[in-house]
Amino acid sequence: MSDIYQDSLKFHKKNGGKLETRSKVSLKTKQDLSLAYTPGVAEPCRAIAKDEKRSFDLTWRGRAVAVVSDGSAVLGLGNIGAAASLPVMEGKSVLMREFGGVDSIPLVIDTQDPDEIIKFVKQIAPSFVGINLEDIAAPNCFIVEDALQNLPIAVFHDDQHGTAIVVLAALLNAAKVVNKKPKDMKAVIIGAGAAGIAITQLLMGLERRHGKFVKKDANQVLGDVILVDSKGAICSKRQDLNDYKHAVNEAINKQKLCGTLEHAVKDADIIIGVSKPNLITSKMIKSMSKDAIIFAMANPTPEIMPDIALAAGAKVVATGRSDFANQVNNVLVFPGIFKAVADYRLTKITTKMKIAAAHTLAKMVKNPTAKKILPNPLNKEVASKIAKSIGKLNKD
Amino acid sequence: MSDIYQDSLKFHKKNGGKLETRSKVSLKTKQDLSLAYTPGVAEPCRAIAKDEKRSFDLTWRGRAVAVVSDGSAVLGLGNIGAAASLPVMEGKSVLMREFGGVDSIPLVIDTQDPDEIIKFVKQIAPSFVGINLEDIAAPNCFIVEDALQNLPIAVFHDDQHGTAIVVLAALLNAAKVVNKKPKDMKAVIIGAGAAGIAITQLLMGLERRHGKFVKKDANQVLGDVILVDSKGAICSKRQDLNDYKHAVNEAINKQKLCGTLEHAVKDADIIIGVSKPNLITSKMIKSMSKDAIIFAMANPTPEIMPDIALAAGAKVVATGRSDFANQVNNVLVFPGIFKAVADYRLTKITTKMKIAAAHTLAKMVKNPTAKKILPNPLNKEVASKIAKSIGKLNKD
Repeated sequence: MSDIYQDSLKFHKKNGGKLETRSKVSLKTKQDLSLAYTPGVAEPCRAIAKDEKRSFDLTWRGRAVAVVSDGSAVLGLGNIGAAASLPVMEGKSVLMREFGGVDSIPLVIDTQDPDEIIKFVKQIAPSFVGINLEDIAAPNCFIVEDALQNLPIAVFHDDQHGTAIVVLAALLNAAKVVNKKPKDMKAVIIGAGAAGIAITQLLMGLERRHGKFVKKDANQVLGDVILVDSKGAICSKRQDLNDYKHAVNEAINKQKLCGTLEHAVKDADIIIGVSKPNLITSKMIKSMSKDAIIFAMANPTPEIMPDIALAAGAKVVATGRSDFANQVNNVLVFPGIFKAVADYRLTKITTKMKIAAAHTLAKMVKNPTAKKILPNPLNKEVASKIAKSIGKLNKD
Repeated sequence: MSDIYQDSLKFHKKNGGKLETRSKVSLKTKQDLSLAYTPGVAEPCRAIAKDEKRSFDLTWRGRAVAVVSDGSAVLGLGNIGAAASLPVMEGKSVLMREFGGVDSIPLVIDTQDPDEIIKFVKQIAPSFVGINLEDIAAPNCFIVEDALQNLPIAVFHDDQHGTAIVVLAALLNAAKVVNKKPKDMKAVIIGAGAAGIAITQLLMGLERRHGKFVKKDANQVLGDVILVDSKGAICSKRQDLNDYKHAVNEAINKQKLCGTLEHAVKDADIIIGVSKPNLITSKMIKSMSKDAIIFAMANPTPEIMPDIALAAGAKVVATGRSDFANQVNNVLVFPGIFKAVADYRLTKITTKMKIAAAHTLAKMVKNPTAKKILPNPLNKEVASKIAKSIGKLNKD
């Protein structure tokens, strides 16, 4: 365990980070300079001044994505601030380039005020085709993302929707493995932050509109969800709920269960953890219904280690990590999402697109098994298949 | 003339812009992912959370420079806005990478309020080792740059100081060609914006401090400068001067000359144009002192075309363009400046450093001639020599 951390530190130091820029064009002759720079460059400037849309074709804007974070909720490390979040955002950028073919840069910013973050993203919009919000704590992440949906470029909070999409894909295949129908399944989701709320939304067919959740029955995947935060199950008796937890509660937890996590997981078919290390115990797994599914996705340390979960009787176990089987990590999603944004110049990622992406991802594993519910994150076809499935919808 | 513009438009369209990002590290195995991303990436995050300085070594921050513009004063095209300025900023970024070895990205922003620009740069500071402000109109550029000098990273307005440095270098060698001492020379500078004010500062030994100009006689290069704007010579009779023009006037124009450009250039030894196309006439050149020097640096169209200036009797003629002899363009400077910022982790570019950079640049041409006063911008040694000369000072 500690080896991978020390090795990673050495790896980051040796390489001096992971990302670099390059010129796509030759800069070897005076003619090259005259075309790329002065005087020639004046002409694309004039063309864009007449029609801003041309900036997507005449500059890198059409394929440039910013990964923006305020460092307020980084991995499972919490609020470590802008600079300390940079290794993660730089990592997202190189993955975006490597798997999605999209040029991406990290922008970590020294403010955690949602109004300032909103203003910031509006200010940089003319530089990019899309913005990947990342590791911004709830509920600010909802406020920020919702306020930016009318920008003329796509703004997508990966911790919410990237995670929700990959969870939906993993769930579809895990259900096949245990031979259950998702609609018959009850889930407990641990963590009612960005990811927990967004997973609940996508799995329960909810759309978030101005802080309210509207249900579309046709999109509901699971039978029910109980959402659990650090105080226990979200339920109507709770007086301490923020607006988003309060609103989502209206559409879930049919049995109106209150109480501890331990209480909530009894007879559950699946636990989806997007919270903190070691919250799931063997005892909890034993109290779940037969052929339990565990997605323990806290990073870097999951809610339960896979060997312990399997020993306790779980049938399918997944984590967010690259070094265990079944990596349920949004690295399977965001490169494809932003490839679609760049290829089809999307200004919004709709629920339909998210569902299409999840089904595409799930279908890439023809015969899911307990040890293989999702494609390998290193599979370079993933992003282009996701992008194409979204593009197809966009044309419809 | 129009060919280079149409060719440049095609060139930008064909390549879809000029800049791209790349991963510096291999992302082919699960082990690679574990090191570059989760779980390993948590460790550099933790290390930076303990000591922010480590962000410079553990991420690309130590070599990442943002080229920031509000699009308010782009080339000679004026206030064309953020998106339309992107081709220029992207061009600066690829030149920075190609010649300075520094990773750079363009950030064009949708605000022209100096307080907002200041806030923006403060917000993105944790992402970069340096900020290259670009094409921000005067006097906002002075307000913005001065307010950011206490940031823990370097903020350098290239239109001001990059231009001033390359002009000083060009002047030193042009003076040799015409066999005059700079201290005996009178200059007329056309354009009292960002570049005009900064050139005046550097050539007259002035330091700007909170909007005032303090003279250091040891740094004075020229005998005198008359600064001219669209209303004529800056002089104490003028009631329409902004604070910066007013303040700089106290330290220049010894003869207290007022009136038109035509009047000002009489007997001048050098005209330095950083203004608009076609402002300099043959008649003006004929009225100058013997062996006149003309730096007609408006982009893309200079204040006078070189063939006309030479025909009128000018001895040394330079422009900002790549397609004429004597390119006096800050492309000779900013890659070296930001190479120095990255290599020596500078937080300020001092006047001493600017002077050192100019002398280094001038000395790279051993025997200056009328057609060769500066090194070729394609010479890859320029940036490293400038960076070394600055680094040497930094160590003193």
